[in-house]
Amino acid sequence: MRILHHLPLSPYARKVRLALAEKRIPFELRVERVWDRRPEFLDMNPACTVPVLIEETGLAIADSYAICEYLDEAYPDITLFGRTLAERAEVRRLVSWFDDKFNTEVTRNLYYEKQMKRLLGRGNPDSGVIRAGYANLRPHLEYLGWLAETRAWLAGPQVSLADFAAAAHLSALDYIGDVDWSTNESAKEWYARMKSRPAFRPLLADRVSGVTPPPHYADPDF
Amino acid sequence: MRILHHLPLSPYARKVRLALAEKRIPFELRVERVWDRRPEFLDMNPACTVPVLIEETGLAIADSYAICEYLDEAYPDITLFGRTLAERAEVRRLVSWFDDKFNTEVTRNLYYEKQMKRLLGRGNPDSGVIRAGYANLRPHLEYLGWLAETRAWLAGPQVSLADFAAAAHLSALDYIGDVDWSTNESAKEWYARMKSRPAFRPLLADRVSGVTPPPHYADPDF
Repeated sequence: MRILHHLPLSPYARKVRLALAEKRIPFELRVERVWDRRPEFLDMNPACTVPVLIEETGLAIADSYAICEYLDEAYPDITLFGRTLAERAEVRRLVSWFDDKFNTEVTRNLYYEKQMKRLLGRGNPDSGVIRAGYANLRPHLEYLGWLAETRAWLAGPQVSLADFAAAAHLSALDYIGDVDWSTNESAKEWYARMKSRPAFRPLLADRVSGVTPPPHYADPDF
Repeated sequence: MRILHHLPLSPYARKVRLALAEKRIPFELRVERVWDRRPEFLDMNPACTVPVLIEETGLAIADSYAICEYLDEAYPDITLFGRTLAERAEVRRLVSWFDDKFNTEVTRNLYYEKQMKRLLGRGNPDSGVIRAGYANLRPHLEYLGWLAETRAWLAGPQVSLADFAAAAHLSALDYIGDVDWSTNESAKEWYARMKSRPAFRPLLADRVSGVTPPPHYADPDF
């Protein structure tokens, strides 16, 4: 069976889980405690990050960007990137927006600072960094809300990897109770649609020891 | 004519310039002072980063990841990603290694901290951050040297976007005099091969006002 090495709250692993499920590609999950720096895992991915996908042929693919592009090339029937060159450019611009800009300005300052820093042995959370994360989240929710108002889905008429990248980051932050959805009605309505998709159900069932999600986390009608 | 909005030392713009030149796609360069936050530029790329590519059809593509994947799909004759799925996964893993991990651990701590921070109005360089950048560069040069010793090019038998991503970051750091090539002979030998490629010449001719590169910067036999 195909295996995805992951951590339950990793936004990059969540994006790949959503992509696999939307493309109806079966896989098994294996939790990888990256802070243990397991030698066999380092051989597959010297960056020691999740996700890593292992195909049934033995092919190991590290890095969520490499995995998502691989899935589009290896299993093209259901595309998550759009059909035209212009659509695909817009999907990828937004994937980069969430995986790079949103991650640097929000996810790292909240999820990484609060959850991962101690596990990785890099000290205690910094309250100034966490404050910056909350401050940055608000304009990001506004931009997302504006996209959701002006288009059917974030990148255009079809649901795409841009929606899954955004939902992956926001769902990880929502699990730790860091998203105030009341600040933007359009963003909230888009996220409710994302949560209702069958591909999303396993993410809503995730539980991490020591961290209880808020009651609305798993509720599509929050 | 096709236009690439760039900054001379941006590693992401340099990667795209190398990709365009290797694929023999003609283009014109336009310097974009991103810190001016020009409204017409923000319309094309709300993230307000370079590079942005404008095709002759008017199609604007923002973000170096989106541009490089677009170029591979729109102009497939000369591929920079390899032919097989496994080759392409390895190229993309390494592009991500340099554009994400190397950037976070080295480029941001040196090029961004020393050159961009003041221009963007985000304060003065932090000497602790710069020290961390130098310390992180050494193991990265070792990994690059190891790849260059065990393969013809970084990702495998053919030159690929992995080489251009790596050379883009290192050439920007080399311009500001931050790379001590004597620490790794294999990395130096690989970089000499990169500098000898015709696509590299325009980068070696770049000059930025107020910053004089070291004498070896433009010399392929450094």
